[in-house]
Formats: sequence, C-alpha cells, structure tokens
Amino acid sequence: MVRIGIDVGGTGIQVGAINENREIIARGGIPTRTDIPFGEQVHRIAQCVLGLLQPKGNPPLREDDIISVGIGIPGIADRNGNVIKCTNMGWHHVPFREEFVKYLNKPVLIDNDANVAALAESVAGVSAGTSSSVFITLGTGIGSGIILNGRIWNGAHGIGGELGHTIMELDGVPCTCGNHGCLERYCSATAVIRMARDMVEAHPESLIMEACGGNPNRINAKIVFDAAREGDPSAEKIFRRYIRYLGQAIANVVNILDPEVIVLGGGVSKAGDFLLNAVREEFPQYVLFNDQPLPGVELAILGPDAGIIGAAMLS
Amino acid sequence: MVRIGIDVGGTGIQVGAINENREIIARGGIPTRTDIPFGEQVHRIAQCVLGLLQPKGNPPLREDDIISVGIGIPGIADRNGNVIKCTNMGWHHVPFREEFVKYLNKPVLIDNDANVAALAESVAGVSAGTSSSVFITLGTGIGSGIILNGRIWNGAHGIGGELGHTIMELDGVPCTCGNHGCLERYCSATAVIRMARDMVEAHPESLIMEACGGNPNRINAKIVFDAAREGDPSAEKIFRRYIRYLGQAIANVVNILDPEVIVLGGGVSKAGDFLLNAVREEFPQYVLFNDQPLPGVELAILGPDAGIIGAAMLS
Repeated sequence: MVRIGIDVGGTGIQVGAINENREIIARGGIPTRTDIPFGEQVHRIAQCVLGLLQPKGNPPLREDDIISVGIGIPGIADRNGNVIKCTNMGWHHVPFREEFVKYLNKPVLIDNDANVAALAESVAGVSAGTSSSVFITLGTGIGSGIILNGRIWNGAHGIGGELGHTIMELDGVPCTCGNHGCLERYCSATAVIRMARDMVEAHPESLIMEACGGNPNRINAKIVFDAAREGDPSAEKIFRRYIRYLGQAIANVVNILDPEVIVLGGGVSKAGDFLLNAVREEFPQYVLFNDQPLPGVELAILGPDAGIIGAAMLS
Repeated sequence: MVRIGIDVGGTGIQVGAINENREIIARGGIPTRTDIPFGEQVHRIAQCVLGLLQPKGNPPLREDDIISVGIGIPGIADRNGNVIKCTNMGWHHVPFREEFVKYLNKPVLIDNDANVAALAESVAGVSAGTSSSVFITLGTGIGSGIILNGRIWNGAHGIGGELGHTIMELDGVPCTCGNHGCLERYCSATAVIRMARDMVEAHPESLIMEACGGNPNRINAKIVFDAAREGDPSAEKIFRRYIRYLGQAIANVVNILDPEVIVLGGGVSKAGDFLLNAVREEFPQYVLFNDQPLPGVELAILGPDAGIIGAAMLS
C-alpha cells in the first residue's frame, strides 16, 4: 500500500508514492502552469499521479494500492479539500478535492507547504519520534509549521502557524505583507542580504564585497556567513545580529509553545553547524524559565523531499 | 461528587468545592504564609480543604465525595504533582502532591494560575464550548494560558504559555525578567501607568493629572482609560498606543495559534467595551490572512472565581 504526496511549487509540481516505511518508491513531476484554467491544472496533476502507476511493475503499483493523496500548497486550505487561497497558482476558493477525484477517487487532503514539511520532519526526519515540534524555514521568506500531539496545528480557521509574520519589532522594517516589523524581515535570507548591502556600503573593504565580485546585487546569505566564518569583521557583525534576532524568535516559540524540538530548514540553514551552534548558545537567555530543560534546536534533514513525504502523510 | 480547586495567591489562598455543574458549593480561605516550612504550608492548605467537609450538611459533603484536588500556583509544576518553581511561595522543586496526600488521599493536579484561569473560562466562562482559546490577563504583569483540544497546553517541558515574555520589540524596554522588549512592558497595567507618567510630565494640563490628585504616583490604568473616554487628548494618545500594542500582540497569537477565541482578563480588561471595541477593530490589520474568518476577542467573565473553578477542572 502507498500514499501519494504532491508538492505544489511556484516552478514545478513534484509527486511521489510513499511506502509504509515512508520511503519514496516512485516519483514524477511537471512544470507549474498558471496560464490554464483551474480544471486543466488539476487534470495535469492527476495525470502526473496516474503516471506513477505500474500495474505490471515489480513490485506492481496499482490504483487499488493507493490509500490517500495529500497535497502541500503555498497557501491555505480548509478541511474539506478546498483551497482557500494559493496566490502563486491563482487559486482562490477552488474545490480541489472535488475536481481531483474525477480522475482518482481517493481521500484527498490539502495543507500548507510549510505545515507539510513540518509533518515530514516529525514523522520521517530529524524530529521523528517527537509529538511536538515547530519547523521554521529560513529562506527568501519564512515559512513555519507547528506539530502538536503528532498532528499539524493550523488553528481554528486554518490561518495559524505563520510565525514569519508575527511582529518582532513595533513599527519596525516594512514587510511585503503590509505590516511592519515582521519576523520575516529580520530572520530570512532576504534580511541577511539587506543587512549585508547596507554594510558593504559603509565597509567596501569587507570580504563580502570581494566574494560577490564587487556587485552587491550578487550577495546571498551563504556569501555573508562564509565571510563571517573566515573572520571578516563586517560579516561577523551581521552574523551576530542575525543570530540575536533568530535567538529571540526561537525563544518566543519556546515561551509560547515549548515544543520538544525546533527544526530549522531553508537556504539559510545550509550554514549548518556554524549557524546551529551559535543559535543554540543564543536563544536560552531570552527564555523566561531558562533554568528548566529546553527544547532542542536541530537542522532539517529531508531537504526537498519533505514536501512529498509530508503531503503523503496528511491524514 | 465534587472537585476541589485551590487558588494559591501572594496574599491569600482560596479553596472551593465544585459540583458537576461547575458551581462553587463550598468555599474557604486562609492568608498566605511564607514564613513557615513547606510541610506546614501544605498542612495549612490541606486543613483549609478539609474544613469544607460537612458530613452532616444538607446536602452532605464527605471526603468520599471528592474526586480530585487541583491547585493553581503563580509558578510552574510538573505532571507528577511537584512544584518546579513558585517564587512567591518560596517553593523550588518541592513534592506538593506527596506532602498533600498525607492529609487527603486524592488525585492532586497542579498547574500555573494563568493556565488554570484559561481552563476555567473555556469550561465555565466566556469561551465555554470552544476547543481552542488563549487567555491573556492584562494586570500588573501579563499572564496567559493556552487551551488546545480542550486541554491546557503548557509545552513539552511545562514552560510554554508565557506570552507576556515574548519579545515584541528588539532591544526594547527593559523587563523585570532581564530581557528587553517583552510584551508585558507594552500591554500590562504597569505599561499604561509608565506611559501616563511620561505623558503628564509633558502635559500637566491632562485630565489624568486632575484625576490622580496631582500625584503621578497615584495613576492607574482606570484613571488613564477613563480620561481617554472623556476625550482628554493626552489620555487618548496613550489609549491609542496601548490598543496598537495590544492589537499586534493579539494578531501574533492569531498568526501562530489561530484559536477560536482570545479572552482578555485582568485589571486593564475592566475598561470593558471601550477596550474591547477598540481592540477588535485594531487587531485584524496585523493578521496575515485577515480576509478569512478570525478568532473572536472577548472579556473574561468569571473574575476571581476562575482560579478555583479552573484548578478544580484540572485532569
């Protein structure tokens, strides 16, 4: 028996079949198309899923072997299989499940992509075996997913789990969401780049400038953190500031939810132990009851497969 | 059958017996004493509970009628009936249950007082009938309790649910906890008083000054909000700023947890509809998915009884 996971992204849609050991035993993918009507988009996705079937394979993969179909989207959905909002795909209040079951009549479950990645890590990744965890992706933006009692917690109206847009600074940096001071403006890769561009303006002698070939538009988080690791004073300043912000963000999660584990993913997390050791040292000072045992902080391990695995595990 | 609730406060300890309709059918109380050893403190509390028994009353209340004993403390406890930390009482890692059952051998459950008040409102108060709610007490400090799936969520290590010490402003106002920018420094009664004292220094003509008899040390939140209601420009400025802070704090709760209801209690909430209407209007703008149905915001209704009722409902 297998579960199907579908990872809907801005450029591509990945699908996979997961066995009982949570291994991906078949994969497929199509480019994302937003220029066709909703019904055709769903038809293409369904065809991609059906393309995984190998009735005469060894072992065979038949339609009857499919338990359920889960979909992770960059947006929000309700519990009845309707997408409420998925701006990238142009989906607003569309009946995904109703459309999909025309091609493959199985239970269809939809959730936000960060929630789905959080679930994946908590069943098959670094937080496997825990019943509560919070997953934070530090990428261009900040996504997050909350797992409580082994299940995704996305709130009473499906709009929770959005740590990236909690306010960390009253009247702070303007955010793409229209508010000011959102966490995303301080802890995303975009925030690192913004700090670095400001820094090289005042300190053109910084290693960062050399590493980006003198073009501040080429700065990325890796360049900045690599320069910090090599001891460049300007890059170290940015890194320290970033760690302070991230430490406070993690402490807020502890003060509110106190999960067993906090998992960091996304591009920034590729800085690995350099980031992890610094943030593990930083966050406890901002926790109220920091003389107690505290949540662990770990790096995500599933990478891009988290989208397929987590979607398949939706229930 | 009854459940016993014990509300441990800094000045007094209130006890009550709750019937199946969650009504308090017997009450008692003793002054808090911190000058005696832990064993004697527990003995006094147990005697106060035993004083509720009326074997020959009508209806009688016998030891056999007691299902359980719950205790709300201004501190944290583990699931085995040990108090981890309760600074006001001088309790650090003390075996409360072990000591208490010497006098009354019943299941003994302990939790934080704000968690207990949150539970009370969610079973017998304004949020009765909901399965998820967040309770925030706006008093001298800020307490909070999270109810998810009908139960208190205090985290994997018992240190969650502390919204008052989440950071709302990076490098903000210094907090009693040692950090900077904690929510408590912006949304407590203490914060209102601090803003008002600063204000009357620059604007001695404010109604606030008149209402406190010219002595800024007598300012309280009620004086400030009453002056705002009467249209005093300085008080209105403080009120607007306070509502902006509180709106952002509530939006953070929505963006993370999205409970069915957010309940406001504590001294500041006595401003009633004047506060409630303003904050209901303010918070949605800071919510990411604010075009969706949003949590309700309500005022707590149980008042001081919440401590006894919620403690009794611990399970």
